[in-house]
Amino acid sequence: MNDVKLESILAKFDLKIAQLNALNYASSMMFWDASTGAPKSGVEARSRAVGVLSGFYHSISTDCEFKEILDQLELHKADLSQEQNALRKHFQKEYNKISKIPAAEYEAFQSHISTSAMVWEQAKENANFEQFKPYLETTIETLKKFASYRGYEGHPYNLYIDDFEPGMTVSQLNQFFETLKSRLVPLLNQIRAKQKPDKGFLKQSYAIGKQKEIAEMLLDCIGFDRQRGMFEESVHPFTMGVAIDDVRLTSHYYEKDLLSAMLSSVHEGGHGIYEQNVDHKLSGTPLATGASNGFHESQSRIYENNFFKSDAFMAFLFPILQEKYPENLESITYETFFKAVNCVEPSLIRIEADELTYALHILVRYELELGLISGTQSVAELPKAWYDKMEQYLGVVPMNHSEGVLQDVHWSEALFGYFPTYALGSAYAAQLCYYMKKEINVDQQLRKGDFGPLTKWLNEKVHQYGALYEPTELIEKITGETLNVNYYCDYLEQKYKKLYDL
Amino acid sequence: MNDVKLESILAKFDLKIAQLNALNYASSMMFWDASTGAPKSGVEARSRAVGVLSGFYHSISTDCEFKEILDQLELHKADLSQEQNALRKHFQKEYNKISKIPAAEYEAFQSHISTSAMVWEQAKENANFEQFKPYLETTIETLKKFASYRGYEGHPYNLYIDDFEPGMTVSQLNQFFETLKSRLVPLLNQIRAKQKPDKGFLKQSYAIGKQKEIAEMLLDCIGFDRQRGMFEESVHPFTMGVAIDDVRLTSHYYEKDLLSAMLSSVHEGGHGIYEQNVDHKLSGTPLATGASNGFHESQSRIYENNFFKSDAFMAFLFPILQEKYPENLESITYETFFKAVNCVEPSLIRIEADELTYALHILVRYELELGLISGTQSVAELPKAWYDKMEQYLGVVPMNHSEGVLQDVHWSEALFGYFPTYALGSAYAAQLCYYMKKEINVDQQLRKGDFGPLTKWLNEKVHQYGALYEPTELIEKITGETLNVNYYCDYLEQKYKKLYDL
Repeated sequence: MNDVKLESILAKFDLKIAQLNALNYASSMMFWDASTGAPKSGVEARSRAVGVLSGFYHSISTDCEFKEILDQLELHKADLSQEQNALRKHFQKEYNKISKIPAAEYEAFQSHISTSAMVWEQAKENANFEQFKPYLETTIETLKKFASYRGYEGHPYNLYIDDFEPGMTVSQLNQFFETLKSRLVPLLNQIRAKQKPDKGFLKQSYAIGKQKEIAEMLLDCIGFDRQRGMFEESVHPFTMGVAIDDVRLTSHYYEKDLLSAMLSSVHEGGHGIYEQNVDHKLSGTPLATGASNGFHESQSRIYENNFFKSDAFMAFLFPILQEKYPENLESITYETFFKAVNCVEPSLIRIEADELTYALHILVRYELELGLISGTQSVAELPKAWYDKMEQYLGVVPMNHSEGVLQDVHWSEALFGYFPTYALGSAYAAQLCYYMKKEINVDQQLRKGDFGPLTKWLNEKVHQYGALYEPTELIEKITGETLNVNYYCDYLEQKYKKLYDL
Repeated sequence: MNDVKLESILAKFDLKIAQLNALNYASSMMFWDASTGAPKSGVEARSRAVGVLSGFYHSISTDCEFKEILDQLELHKADLSQEQNALRKHFQKEYNKISKIPAAEYEAFQSHISTSAMVWEQAKENANFEQFKPYLETTIETLKKFASYRGYEGHPYNLYIDDFEPGMTVSQLNQFFETLKSRLVPLLNQIRAKQKPDKGFLKQSYAIGKQKEIAEMLLDCIGFDRQRGMFEESVHPFTMGVAIDDVRLTSHYYEKDLLSAMLSSVHEGGHGIYEQNVDHKLSGTPLATGASNGFHESQSRIYENNFFKSDAFMAFLFPILQEKYPENLESITYETFFKAVNCVEPSLIRIEADELTYALHILVRYELELGLISGTQSVAELPKAWYDKMEQYLGVVPMNHSEGVLQDVHWSEALFGYFPTYALGSAYAAQLCYYMKKEINVDQQLRKGDFGPLTKWLNEKVHQYGALYEPTELIEKITGETLNVNYYCDYLEQKYKKLYDL
């Protein structure tokens, strides 16, 4: 191919990218609007519009014109820049994901998912697994069938984990979770034998206005640029990278919970900082986001857990909180406060879990969903298996399915392969933190409340690259080694052994 | 054509309508977002997305597939329902508007407009007409050329007025404005000879929090359903019908102005009530809006002027305001208040004009833009002509172009034919009000602050039909006669002769 021809193909490719980006932009707007105050009565009109726009997205990204562009680019990949190749691979992967599935089956499954999600909502409300069961069965059967259409190496679940964490495989995950289990379950058992710290004071009344001020202060402090984004309220906190220079976060405030809004603000802030600091050369492309779900989660968790909940930062923050809420905190010692913030308490609900038990919630889900896709776990027996694993790893059991197997939305939307990335995120965070500490006195910075050099390090090592590298490449580029779960286990052991005098 | 074939064409038509509606929905979201808090840094990403989506809209609504559908439907218009024919005509008109203009010229003009609008903004800031002049000249030349491509009857300006007010013509407008001029200019001169009422107290300090409460109370009172919409703040108040059940308004609050936010809330509320009460059978189509710009404006103005500023409603509202702001209003008599609200004061800026002089601001613009399109008015001489007409009709003259010929955005965006619809709106409002009073004791209702029967009358007579009828048909259907400007002049004469003891 001569240069002129390649240039014309690249121009067509750019046009397609701009079109798909515009459709994503529009969908983001609708989602943001729906989550931050749109009237309920508008839901039908919005659903119609969302449906049409996702139809446009689907047809542009899978039509033969686009396929032709991708094929041409692949033939000449040696002549493409690193970004061009990453984009080519991104869209080729999206294309492969859909194109091998017969269109009618694909559409039927989309419609199944939307019903399944509605049924799950009902079933959860009624704590009635039987209601949801047939939908989950169809989902599993379809995912298996689609895996055979798409083709895979090793294990069908590899396909689904790869959708969220490119390059990750079942065999790596098995090893990852085996190590987690063997190191964290005994640690938790040791902690459970110890006396629980007092944390009742965290559930007193804390004026919401002041909570908002604190949340804003924390975002400024960690380095989220509120001028290049928005910070609003929604039922479930989330982050949305509308564009590199338009990154939006939400939080949620509970009067009777001092920690919740601070944690979710810092967590979403971490996601937001990632989105805001991608190199502008990736602007307007699907590479202007994190390297993977796991990598994105590593950034929310490094700020929330490794930094925010650290002894060093808590020592900085506590006097500020005491000044804001003297009536609640004047008589509390720093030690009591720090222990309360990091209290380990096995519980039933994943999203309310503490830093240590959180990983075990994921372990339960990983083992179950792997079993479902492998065919070794039946849907009918899922509630019992859930119960058993909760008992075995966390030592607590649900009283009903709504706080058990029905608690999370993921399976109802066929998001298999998503859960593991939460644990991978914490593991990436621990590994990054270990290497960051070789270059920066992290604790000294946190003790001053100065995140500057920490955020700058992450900007340089992680954020700027967006999704230019696969997560496996990126972690190796930064730390010189592949993902090593032992950093995560070491970090948790060190932290909690000290906290609980073990 | 057999029924099966017609059905299949109608199914394709519905699909196109759904696609265009979704694109409009997305654009609305972006505009709403941009106007209510989106970060400035996101403007570039938004512009890119807006550009792509309007490209989609343009190509869908002008491609040969759509043309073929429209042609087929026209052949069988006798078999179509009233709604189907109204939709067919709507899209045929959109198609004709664009399809006869060579694509390259059309695109060049779009790009010219966007530059022109930016240059105008600069020129207005600098009060420098010369800077804007060449852009306006190109706009006028292009509009004339496009009129020749599109073809027209009688006068090229007919095309442009018809874009905003279907069925209206230059000869009707000439008559309309001649009557206005001959009746209102003398009335204004009589008023100018009288003593000005005191209205300084309206510009004292009025706490903004309370102003918001009043605005919300007024919206509830007139019948805007805040549950099926939103009410927010933006620099320039506007209404956006995202969908029939999702209608959004904004207002703007000035601490040193008691009236401004009330007037704009009630004005936008009138637009909003129109959008909310279109029959749901028109939902998701371009007919789910007002019959025309003029008709839409009639609804904002009937609430703002005919109802809100009336003696009857002011008598109801004044004690409520006195209770809210005793420090400002305790010592003010009702008569003083009512006269202040309805004070006539010729001024330079259209959007700040009172009810009487407003029409004369439109008269100035109508005569000038008609002259520009007719070729009897040069752009070079426009500032002088503006000055002369302001002097002649309003008796005030601008000190600079920024408060003169450069004050409005419309011409910079090639929105010729738009201005007259403001005056038409007031005239429709007066005519509707006249007929409403034959059936309802309007003053008695307003004196109780009960808009229920008034809004219900408008729902039934006007709102439910959306854009199913052309404005000329609709006014005749409701009042049994075509638009008659004398109702408007009579209303103003009666009101102001009484107010000013003439």
